[in-house]
Amino acid sequence: MVASLRLPSLTSLLFPATTRYPAALRRSLCLRNRPASGFATAPSGTASPETKSEVGRLPRSDQAVTPRSQDFNAWYLDVIASAELADYGPVRGTMVIRPYGYAIWEAIQDYLNVKFKETGHSNMYFPQFIPYSFIEKEASHVEGFSPELALVTVGGGNELEEKLVVRPTSETIVNHMFTQWIHSYRDLPLMINQWANVTRWEMRTKPFIRTLEFLWQEGHTAHATPEEAEKEAKQMIEIYTRFAFEETAIPVIAGRKSKMETFAGADTTYTIEAMMGDRKALQAGTSHNLGQNFSRAFGTQFQDENGERQHVWQTSWAVSTRFVGGIIMTHGDDTGLMLPPKIAPIQVVIVPIWKKDSEKTEVLNAASSVKEVLQTAGVRVKLDDTTERTAGWKFNFWEMKGVPIRIEIGPRDVSNNSVVVSRRDIPGKAGKVFGISMEPSTLVAYVKEKLDEIQSSLLEKAISFRDSNIVDVNSYEELKAAISSGKWARGPWSASDSDEQRVKEETGATIRCFPFEQTLGSKTCLMTGNPAEEVAIFAKSY
Amino acid sequence: MVASLRLPSLTSLLFPATTRYPAALRRSLCLRNRPASGFATAPSGTASPETKSEVGRLPRSDQAVTPRSQDFNAWYLDVIASAELADYGPVRGTMVIRPYGYAIWEAIQDYLNVKFKETGHSNMYFPQFIPYSFIEKEASHVEGFSPELALVTVGGGNELEEKLVVRPTSETIVNHMFTQWIHSYRDLPLMINQWANVTRWEMRTKPFIRTLEFLWQEGHTAHATPEEAEKEAKQMIEIYTRFAFEETAIPVIAGRKSKMETFAGADTTYTIEAMMGDRKALQAGTSHNLGQNFSRAFGTQFQDENGERQHVWQTSWAVSTRFVGGIIMTHGDDTGLMLPPKIAPIQVVIVPIWKKDSEKTEVLNAASSVKEVLQTAGVRVKLDDTTERTAGWKFNFWEMKGVPIRIEIGPRDVSNNSVVVSRRDIPGKAGKVFGISMEPSTLVAYVKEKLDEIQSSLLEKAISFRDSNIVDVNSYEELKAAISSGKWARGPWSASDSDEQRVKEETGATIRCFPFEQTLGSKTCLMTGNPAEEVAIFAKSY
Repeated sequence: MVASLRLPSLTSLLFPATTRYPAALRRSLCLRNRPASGFATAPSGTASPETKSEVGRLPRSDQAVTPRSQDFNAWYLDVIASAELADYGPVRGTMVIRPYGYAIWEAIQDYLNVKFKETGHSNMYFPQFIPYSFIEKEASHVEGFSPELALVTVGGGNELEEKLVVRPTSETIVNHMFTQWIHSYRDLPLMINQWANVTRWEMRTKPFIRTLEFLWQEGHTAHATPEEAEKEAKQMIEIYTRFAFEETAIPVIAGRKSKMETFAGADTTYTIEAMMGDRKALQAGTSHNLGQNFSRAFGTQFQDENGERQHVWQTSWAVSTRFVGGIIMTHGDDTGLMLPPKIAPIQVVIVPIWKKDSEKTEVLNAASSVKEVLQTAGVRVKLDDTTERTAGWKFNFWEMKGVPIRIEIGPRDVSNNSVVVSRRDIPGKAGKVFGISMEPSTLVAYVKEKLDEIQSSLLEKAISFRDSNIVDVNSYEELKAAISSGKWARGPWSASDSDEQRVKEETGATIRCFPFEQTLGSKTCLMTGNPAEEVAIFAKSY
Repeated sequence: MVASLRLPSLTSLLFPATTRYPAALRRSLCLRNRPASGFATAPSGTASPETKSEVGRLPRSDQAVTPRSQDFNAWYLDVIASAELADYGPVRGTMVIRPYGYAIWEAIQDYLNVKFKETGHSNMYFPQFIPYSFIEKEASHVEGFSPELALVTVGGGNELEEKLVVRPTSETIVNHMFTQWIHSYRDLPLMINQWANVTRWEMRTKPFIRTLEFLWQEGHTAHATPEEAEKEAKQMIEIYTRFAFEETAIPVIAGRKSKMETFAGADTTYTIEAMMGDRKALQAGTSHNLGQNFSRAFGTQFQDENGERQHVWQTSWAVSTRFVGGIIMTHGDDTGLMLPPKIAPIQVVIVPIWKKDSEKTEVLNAASSVKEVLQTAGVRVKLDDTTERTAGWKFNFWEMKGVPIRIEIGPRDVSNNSVVVSRRDIPGKAGKVFGISMEPSTLVAYVKEKLDEIQSSLLEKAISFRDSNIVDVNSYEELKAAISSGKWARGPWSASDSDEQRVKEETGATIRCFPFEQTLGSKTCLMTGNPAEEVAIFAKSY
C-alpha cells in the first residue's frame, strides 16, 4: 500500500497536482515510498544519465510476454518491448517512441487536432526555454514545479547569467506573450494550442506513464469573463471524455479534482480518470480553470467595453503520450496488446498460407488483391508476406501486436473465393469465421462491421470491468476495505484536507475526482457524518 | 562585405557545414564579423536571457511595413510583425511562432509527411537530451557542434554527473538506438523520421532564419550498401526540390556541397539553395550521405547474408521552419507578404462592402453564401465581416498578410449576382476583374483557375528573377565583379579548399553548391586554369 502512496506532484505525469503542501513535507513523504518493484529503470535519486549496462533493458521483442494475470507490471513492460512500442533512451527516465507506438500517438493527434480547430483554437509554438524568474511569479506554480525542473545553465560555451528552465508546462511563457498581444476586449477570446515536448525531472519513471520528457498538447485560452473561462474548461474536458470513449474505448470518469489535487496555479481542475487492468487509476487528461492567477502574476490585462482595465480569465488543458500507456493497460490481455480499431495503426493483417511452391503464387495474388480492396475502402491493412516465418508464428506475433482483425488465406480459400476472419478480442475458435466471400463489396462490408463490433465490444468490456470494481461506501471502514481489495471506492465526502491526507497515508488511495455524474438524494460524509453534497471516488493511482 | 563573411557552422541554421577548420580558427574568424545591421536582437556574445526592454521589439502589427525596396531587412522584420507570423520569445534568440506563421509550417508538414510515408519512412520520436559523451564520439561532428550547444547541468534540484546536451541534431542518439535495433540484413533498410524541436546556441539570430530553437523534421536511415544510402540521400533532396518548386514556388537550385561546406559527419551533403529577394542565398534543405562515419563511431553493425558483420551505411536529411523565412523573402513585395496559394493558410478573403444599414444584410448574406460555396469546394476562405474597420483598411491588411485572392461584394454586385476578384500578385486595377458570376460552379471554377495561375505566376517570376541574377564567370575577376554587384556567380571550379577559403574571405561569398544540372563541354577552373569537371555556384548567404 505504501508503494503507491505518492504525493500528487510526483504522482502525475500530466499535471503534478497539489501544491498546498510545503516542498519539504512532500519530499519527506516521498522518501517513505519504497521503489515500486519491477520498473526496469534506475532507483530514484539517481540524477545522472547512465550507461546502458546500468539500466534495465526492456525484454527482447521476440519472446512471449509475461501473462498479464501473472505480473501486471512485467506484462506491461514486455508488451511495450515485444510490440516495439517504445524503448529506453540513454538518459535515465527518457523514452524512445518507436514507429508502432508513435502511430498510436499520431491517431490521437489527428482526432484531437480536428476537434481543437473545430472549437476555434489555433496551433502555434512557444519556445521551450523559460527564464527561471518566470516560474517564480505564480506562487503555487513554482512550489509545484520547482522540484521537477531541468535547467540549462550553459549555452554556446558560456555560463548563462540567468538559468533557463526547460518547459515543464507553458503557462508562464504563454502569459508573458499574452500580456503583449492582448490589449482590448476585441482581442478576446484568445484560444491557442501547441503540440510540444515537455520535461519533468521525475524520480521513478515508467514508459509512457511517467517519463522525463514526454509529448503532449497544451491548450491555453484567455477570456473576458469567468463564465467564458469556466465554459471553455468544461468544453475541453468534454472533448477529452468523448475522445476516450469513442476512439480509445476507455470509459473514463470525468469530474472535478479535490482542492488538494488541483493543478499548481489553477482555481479548478477537471480530470478524466481511467481504470487500468490492475484497477489502478490513471489520470488521462486534465482541463484547468486558471481564474486570474496567471494573469495577475503576469499583468495580463485588457480594456473592457467600458474602458476599464481588467485581468483576463484563463484556462489550460492537456493530453499526453501517457494516453498510449492507458490504452495498453485498459485493453491488453495475457497474449499482449489489444488495440481499439479506431486508433489501431494496423486494423487488419492478412496472413497468406501455403505449403507447396505451386500454391504460393495464387495465394499471394489473392492476398494482394484482398489487401488492395480493403486499402481502397479506407481500412488500414498490412499484408505479412514474409517467407522467413511460419503462419503460426505470424498469428502469435500480430496478436501480440494487438491488431484487431486477422485474415487468413490458404489454397482452399482461394479456390472457394473466400477468406477466414479472426477477431483479436475473441480468442480461439470462437473468434474465427470461415468462408467470408472475397467479393469486394461483401468483404469490405463484413470487415467494417466487425471493426465496429470490436470497437463497441472493447468499450462494453471496459465499462463492465470498471463498474464491477467500483464499490459504493458509506464509512471509512468500507472505504478501507474496498481499497485494500484493490477496488475503487465511491462515497459521500465533505471532510477536510487533512482527512483527505489521512486517507492517502492510511490507504494509499487519493480522491481521483468528484464525478460530474452524481446520484440524487441527501448524503452523509463517509468520514465525518456531516452532510455532504457530492460523492468522491477514491483509488490508488499511477 | 565582411558582414556576411561567416563560417559555415555559424552561417547555417539548418546544418552547420564545414568542420574541417579547428574551432579556434573559426572563433577568431567569427570575431572579425561585424554584427549584421538591423537585426532586432541583442549583439552577439550575450549568452543570457534578457528582459523585454533590452531586446528590440518587433514593430507593432498595425503599422505599414517598410517598403522592401528601401530596406530589405527592416521590411522582413516588419512583415513578420505586421502579418503576425512570429514574435520574439523572452530568451534572446528564441521565437514564438504565431498562428498565421504556424499554419504555413503546418502546410509544409502536411505535404512532406505524406511524401515521407509514401517513400517508406515511419515517424517516431527520440529524446531531446543526449549524454555529452555521445556528441564526442564522431570527431568532425563534435567539432562542428560543440560551440553551439545548450547544456542541462541540473535536474530535479541536483547537479548532474554527466551534462546533457539539448539536441542540436539527432545522429548520435539515433545511432545509439540503431545499434540496439539492427542485428541482421533483414532489419535493413531502417527508415525513420521525426518532427521535433532542436537547439543551437546561435550568436546572431533572425526570426525563422536562425533561432536558438527551431522546429524541423529530421530523417535518419540505415542501409546495407553504400549504393542504397546514396540513392536515398538523392531521393530525399529530390523530394525537397519538388516541394520547393511545386508547393512554395521557390525555384531552388539543387546540388552537392563542397567538401568545406559538407555537414559535420557526412561524406556528401546535397542541398537546395534558394535566391531571396535581396539576392542572398538561403540553404533551404539538406540531405546527407553519412557513409559509415556514425556507424563506426557507434558500432552500428549488421550481419550480412554471408554471415559477415558490417557497418551500416546511413543518411540524414532535414527541412526546418527556416523554410517559412524563405517563402517570405522570395515572394514578398513592398506591400508585405505574398503567399503561394498552395501553402497559404487563407487562399481567398471576402470583404463585404456596404454604406447604408439597409444594404448590410443582403451584402452579408451574399458574402456568407459565397464563403460557403468556396469552402465546400475545398478552398481555404475567410470572410472578414468585422464592422470596426473600413473596407479600405481591410484591403490593405489582407494584402499585407499575402492572401492570394480578395473577393469584394457590394450592393451593386449583389444586384448583379456577381463579385469583384482581385489578385494579390498583380497590383492595382490590372489585377482586378469585375462581374464574376456568383453562380457556384462558375465562381468555384474561376477562383480555382486563378489560384493555379497565381501559383504558376509566382514561380515564373521567381525563376526569371533568379536567372537574371546568376552570372556565368570564367575568372576570379569576373566572380568578384558578380558578387560585388550582389549577384550569384556560376563558374568552373576545381581549386583547393584554401582557394575556396580565399574566395570567402575576399568576397563574402561561399560555394553554395555544385548544381546537379551541369553544362556540357570541357571546362577550365576559374581560379587555377586547370581542367574542371563541374561549375560551382558562389553567393553570399544567410
